[in-house]
Amino acid sequence: MRYELYYWPSAQGRGEFVRLALEDAGADYVDVARRPGAKGMPALLRFLKGGPFACPPFAPPFLKAGRQVIAQTANILLFLGPRLGLAPKSEASRLWAHQLQLTIADWLVEGHDTHHPIAGALYYEEQKREAKRRAADFTARRLPKFLDYFEQVSARTPGRTGWLAGRSVSYIDLSMFQMIAGLRYAFPRAMARLARKHPRLVALHDRVSARPRVAAYLASERRIPFNQQGIFRYYPELDA
Amino acid sequence: MRYELYYWPSAQGRGEFVRLALEDAGADYVDVARRPGAKGMPALLRFLKGGPFACPPFAPPFLKAGRQVIAQTANILLFLGPRLGLAPKSEASRLWAHQLQLTIADWLVEGHDTHHPIAGALYYEEQKREAKRRAADFTARRLPKFLDYFEQVSARTPGRTGWLAGRSVSYIDLSMFQMIAGLRYAFPRAMARLARKHPRLVALHDRVSARPRVAAYLASERRIPFNQQGIFRYYPELDA
Repeated sequence: MRYELYYWPSAQGRGEFVRLALEDAGADYVDVARRPGAKGMPALLRFLKGGPFACPPFAPPFLKAGRQVIAQTANILLFLGPRLGLAPKSEASRLWAHQLQLTIADWLVEGHDTHHPIAGALYYEEQKREAKRRAADFTARRLPKFLDYFEQVSARTPGRTGWLAGRSVSYIDLSMFQMIAGLRYAFPRAMARLARKHPRLVALHDRVSARPRVAAYLASERRIPFNQQGIFRYYPELDA
Repeated sequence: MRYELYYWPSAQGRGEFVRLALEDAGADYVDVARRPGAKGMPALLRFLKGGPFACPPFAPPFLKAGRQVIAQTANILLFLGPRLGLAPKSEASRLWAHQLQLTIADWLVEGHDTHHPIAGALYYEEQKREAKRRAADFTARRLPKFLDYFEQVSARTPGRTGWLAGRSVSYIDLSMFQMIAGLRYAFPRAMARLARKHPRLVALHDRVSARPRVAAYLASERRIPFNQQGIFRYYPELDA
């Protein structure tokens, strides 16, 4: 099965959580919108304009798997996890992994909204004043709360395997790597200050980035560098 | 199976999406935090303090089903849907229903953030100025975009059953009822202006509210009225 991933070509964004799973599993996939010409971005836009599809996605990322089109990052990972060998086995454990992924999704929105607290349709510069207020709350309250939570989850995993949802690696670990990497890019000072309080998450980040296929991916051109169009953006004034 | 729902007792909030499914199915459940005394709120707080649980929830709502504890609204509905006869049968259709639920979850956050664009920990009055800006974008751009999307989804359901995810009612229809009801409460003027553009969603709202168990629930004391502590709040100045 060759998977087709549809996501904006200019930033890691939410697509990156899906890419990491596909890359770690060595799956056969094409990053559609990064293809040149009519088979690239126009193919993505066709879906967003509704096209003739019974199940249209609201927004990227979405994944085409045969005739199925699946949107919403966490939903894509729910689908892909078992197929890529990146999900726990039992239904209860799968719901738990999915629950963690949805909590990451909430965290991600809060991270995004530090630089866009008013509207996605406006530039950062048009909401900078509000962004400073929101980012101050994020780094002081929300960021530590999420980090503490996931550190606690890691400490409680039966067998203390170092993975978040069971005995072996799953997509949630790859997503946590991405969160730590992104937050370090966007909030280097806040993250450095908090690092000693979440040693397990730091170790998890390092362990994931050392996985051979992940390491090869991160070193490749397929990994779009962090930049100011993504969800994680570095504005020094937001990193108090 | 007697389900235990854990959610803040003072507002409909996210718990309402779960309540509606339990009520429509006539399920045996207890709304834990609304019980008086030590078996009420203290029972909820015990979970949030971490307790001895291997799978602690980050926030309410969460559902206890036997020994399983499941958090994240959409995840709870993913679990409950098939058990309550409120989910489509095939895996592909279940992912589709879940995808729609996650899109509703995104919409709900944006609705909430109209009155709390800076921080959940601050009062509305402390972020009123920013709220006005965010609400103006929400009612002008985001609200019509989400409504248009779901109206289109409804129009495309095979067989045009009037339900969002297949031949019969599913939890996503109950959630859409709640969105329309909540948005009408919070943004009566904007919703009245947009009503003629989403006749299918209006019809869906009416059809759900006329379902016997839903109607009985809505008329009961179990339904907490909309108020200024919930996700949907009515501030005239935010409803341009």
